[in-house]
Amino acid sequence: MTVSHLADVEYFEAYDQLEVHALMLEDSQRLGSYLAAIRAHDLKDKLVLDVGAGSGILSMLCAKHGLAKHVWAVEAVPGMARMAQQLVQANGLQDKVTILTGRVEDITLPNKMDIIISEWMGFYLLHESMLESVLIARDRFLRAQGRMLPCSARIWAALVEAEDLRLDMANYEDFLGLDLRLVGEQQLAARTAEPRVEEVHGRRILAEPLVAVDLTDLHQLRVEGTRNLEAQLSFRTWRQGYAAGIAFWFDVGFGRDVILKTDPGSPPTHWKQTVVYFGAFPAVESGDVLEANVVLKQSEENPRQYNISVETL
Amino acid sequence: MTVSHLADVEYFEAYDQLEVHALMLEDSQRLGSYLAAIRAHDLKDKLVLDVGAGSGILSMLCAKHGLAKHVWAVEAVPGMARMAQQLVQANGLQDKVTILTGRVEDITLPNKMDIIISEWMGFYLLHESMLESVLIARDRFLRAQGRMLPCSARIWAALVEAEDLRLDMANYEDFLGLDLRLVGEQQLAARTAEPRVEEVHGRRILAEPLVAVDLTDLHQLRVEGTRNLEAQLSFRTWRQGYAAGIAFWFDVGFGRDVILKTDPGSPPTHWKQTVVYFGAFPAVESGDVLEANVVLKQSEENPRQYNISVETL
Repeated sequence: MTVSHLADVEYFEAYDQLEVHALMLEDSQRLGSYLAAIRAHDLKDKLVLDVGAGSGILSMLCAKHGLAKHVWAVEAVPGMARMAQQLVQANGLQDKVTILTGRVEDITLPNKMDIIISEWMGFYLLHESMLESVLIARDRFLRAQGRMLPCSARIWAALVEAEDLRLDMANYEDFLGLDLRLVGEQQLAARTAEPRVEEVHGRRILAEPLVAVDLTDLHQLRVEGTRNLEAQLSFRTWRQGYAAGIAFWFDVGFGRDVILKTDPGSPPTHWKQTVVYFGAFPAVESGDVLEANVVLKQSEENPRQYNISVETL
Repeated sequence: MTVSHLADVEYFEAYDQLEVHALMLEDSQRLGSYLAAIRAHDLKDKLVLDVGAGSGILSMLCAKHGLAKHVWAVEAVPGMARMAQQLVQANGLQDKVTILTGRVEDITLPNKMDIIISEWMGFYLLHESMLESVLIARDRFLRAQGRMLPCSARIWAALVEAEDLRLDMANYEDFLGLDLRLVGEQQLAARTAEPRVEEVHGRRILAEPLVAVDLTDLHQLRVEGTRNLEAQLSFRTWRQGYAAGIAFWFDVGFGRDVILKTDPGSPPTHWKQTVVYFGAFPAVESGDVLEANVVLKQSEENPRQYNISVETL
């Protein structure tokens, strides 16, 4: 039968941390929203540009289900572009979909586009996001009155508990008769030093979630419009609890009532939520007001990275 | 309150892939077995060597619950050794536990030891295992009739299904009306190219698990005794199914009926199980015999790495 020669163990969790492209395909919320948008907007006879096309799935859906006149699928990674090309051929769509290998900043197109579609969103919307490239593509290629899919985006913020984490720390105080508080403190520091991508259960939320960033119209947003975002948030707690940090998530709108949501109450997506931990667990009473200043600042070294800073007052 | 300045997102799953030392402490099966062994053997007035002591938890348990006369805790990583030293002091055990920073191959001890305790096991027992160092410590420091904890170890192998994975692949044949089989094939290749550490549910097992490696007595095992291990296994299937690979796990014995088990039917440990995938899903009928040749060979470049090879006949 089969022979496997295997060199090393992958430490990731099987079925859990899937490869990026499997995630794209297996995240039914994500793809379902795009398909709903493709169907809600009349793409028939339209020229479409797909920015960061990956496997070309959105381009093929535009051609097959949206009956687009032609789709240009731009993908910068040569291996992905080759795969997209093979998939387009396997589906007999080579007359409808053209794969262009390169950055959208560098390519040329024969026409102005009616539609720009792109799945550019990263963790908490902006982490590793391609939004700037999509906005540059808009300025270069979208015709007047052309449509962006999606066309709006919001980042939400919520004050959350982390009782598992807080109580874990308490266990170290008497651990099989030993005082391991030092381990607990180091663990807490290690686990809260970086923002964490995790599934936040709704019951952890301590106060009404607030919109931290509102990009109301991606047709109008300046290319530099997301480099330095700041929000003053005022959370009024619903109940007594222990504040552990601020959870972020996003939604994007496609118009015609199609919204892709990634909040804790919606079906899970691979984006989950992102929590910035305080590293401490201040007690709050019902009705307390906690003011937080949130800054999202694009890294100058790597424009796809953001520094998040949360300051509570 | 607190200010967080944060540079990057960690992509690991919060609460899921915890840091190694938290795992050690939060894996209650693991620590529970060691504590049971410490209690089952009379450590009172004994001299104990702890090889690869980490945070020093086993050494402290030997001193506190085992009433050992003295414990030498050898830890090669200076930062860990410093932490162990602080914990020993926090618990007032500095007269009972001595932390030695260094490799057990390089240190010296004032006496022969009555007991060597060590938590040396890696994934599928041998991956990243410290067993050779423990056996060298035995030859250098254990008195005649001294005791190893643990004193035996076995690697088990079981023929398993992976129906989620197999059926996932089928979904790519008609994916929202598109033929994405090429993606499915690449996914399957990516997901089965390396052994995967995962929790195997018992219902995936297709045939009676077999002992692939039996290290019956670590008091006697040669230091080189695990460099090249080979097993011919003959699985007779219990039922119809689709064979996906071979799952490996281990148990270690401490004597006096104390066994630490990591099989799918026992409470989960951080070791989970390790699956070597065939990359295909051959159908089997009930009563079929599948012969497999398993080779575990230590890497010459890195002695803590093993190459696993599974050949089915």
